[in-house]
Amino acid sequence: MTDSDAETTAEASDEADSNGVVHLVGSGPGDPELLTLKARRLIDEADVVLHDKLPGPEIIETIPDGKREDVGKRAGGERTSQAYTNERLVELARSGKQVVRLKGGDPFVFGRGGEEAAYLAEHGVDFRVVPGVTSALAGPALAGIPATHREHASSVSVVTGHEDPTKDESAVDWDALAATQGTIVVLMGVGKLPEYTQALREAGMDGEVPVALVERASRPDERVVAGTVETITRVADRENVEPPAVTVIGDVAGERDRVREFLRR
Amino acid sequence: MTDSDAETTAEASDEADSNGVVHLVGSGPGDPELLTLKARRLIDEADVVLHDKLPGPEIIETIPDGKREDVGKRAGGERTSQAYTNERLVELARSGKQVVRLKGGDPFVFGRGGEEAAYLAEHGVDFRVVPGVTSALAGPALAGIPATHREHASSVSVVTGHEDPTKDESAVDWDALAATQGTIVVLMGVGKLPEYTQALREAGMDGEVPVALVERASRPDERVVAGTVETITRVADRENVEPPAVTVIGDVAGERDRVREFLRR
Repeated sequence: MTDSDAETTAEASDEADSNGVVHLVGSGPGDPELLTLKARRLIDEADVVLHDKLPGPEIIETIPDGKREDVGKRAGGERTSQAYTNERLVELARSGKQVVRLKGGDPFVFGRGGEEAAYLAEHGVDFRVVPGVTSALAGPALAGIPATHREHASSVSVVTGHEDPTKDESAVDWDALAATQGTIVVLMGVGKLPEYTQALREAGMDGEVPVALVERASRPDERVVAGTVETITRVADRENVEPPAVTVIGDVAGERDRVREFLRR
Repeated sequence: MTDSDAETTAEASDEADSNGVVHLVGSGPGDPELLTLKARRLIDEADVVLHDKLPGPEIIETIPDGKREDVGKRAGGERTSQAYTNERLVELARSGKQVVRLKGGDPFVFGRGGEEAAYLAEHGVDFRVVPGVTSALAGPALAGIPATHREHASSVSVVTGHEDPTKDESAVDWDALAATQGTIVVLMGVGKLPEYTQALREAGMDGEVPVALVERASRPDERVVAGTVETITRVADRENVEPPAVTVIGDVAGERDRVREFLRR
């Protein structure tokens, strides 16, 4: 793509009378104080804020009712489709609105922000990306677990637990993730916990590797449950761990025991 | 560790008359508006803010001179050791100060925050962790590149480019990272670019895989330079890319071309 192409398209966009803009904004892990200053300002200045349940109730409560649109659920109770959200963003921007599309964590980490950005661009709508604090790293951090550590982990890999690792067509390569020897963080990590810990064992990971589950990170009822690759499924079951939760797998999860007595909220 | 151990140690901490606290705070990628509300408040309320160069000049300028302590460089010009920083944090907290240890990006992603937390806990000092927006994900996002994408990447792995991949003892397993088929983000990714792109080629990665270098992400002079695993070293050399920069390797880097005309800053 050349610069002159870009200029031509920008003109076409002006001709379409699209003065609105969509801000794809990350809301962080849930604590309203973990919003960025930019996210807070854009929410306050927006004409409309489209959101689902993922930002969490403490943040959603701070958005004036008059400009909130919950696209996570419609009147009838059924889930709103991604197609509806995409079209609504374009419609609002074309009518000249300043739109915030508020997403849990970071908009571009398992948030379908990339798909929304592509849809907006295809329809000639200007957009901005406002990165947020991702729960994938904040969850461990708030539990006293560093994602990387000079002695324990030279890399951190983030995946989603929504996929079923027993399916043949699973896109997540648990063998390769285990082979990195780095920290593995699983977002939405509760439902498929038995399957992916089993996949990691089959990939040769030691059953004694520490695992921590961080439930509702940064929110008032945050809780941490700890075990090992071998035991964590039983522990999570016994402790009734529920979504949303982030799973941290790796030696770094053991660091929590060294620091937790002095870790304040 | 049992609950009763924790109680005993907390008492010992009280006896030591340690009323100060150290906040390990992430400053985000560099734009002062990408500080979290909590980071901003803690900086404003702190007695002392210890920092190095990594938060970037735009953020450092917002800290009142009277409470800044630059531990990245001392009077004589030599670099301050990590040991000095650790000891200074303990000393300040023990004298009852509210201390912010401000770190670029997120304190627990290649920030040695884990080591500082462990040192504080060993010395009976209370601390908090305030996660920040990591440059590893914000850099790509601000360039229009989603770290993950349903069609292109089921995982994102973050490593540091400070290690030499040609050393036998390199802790980063580039073969395993390539095998994940996910996005790879390299922090501090300029210096060793030739070495790790070569390591990825040798691991079987296709030379046509898109690569983007995001220089000074979120700062006024942010710049993006694009190429492929095969070409990026030449391109970076020609364009004089300089640290700090984040490297994004994977099909997601190609998404930028789909959206860049409509991506606003």
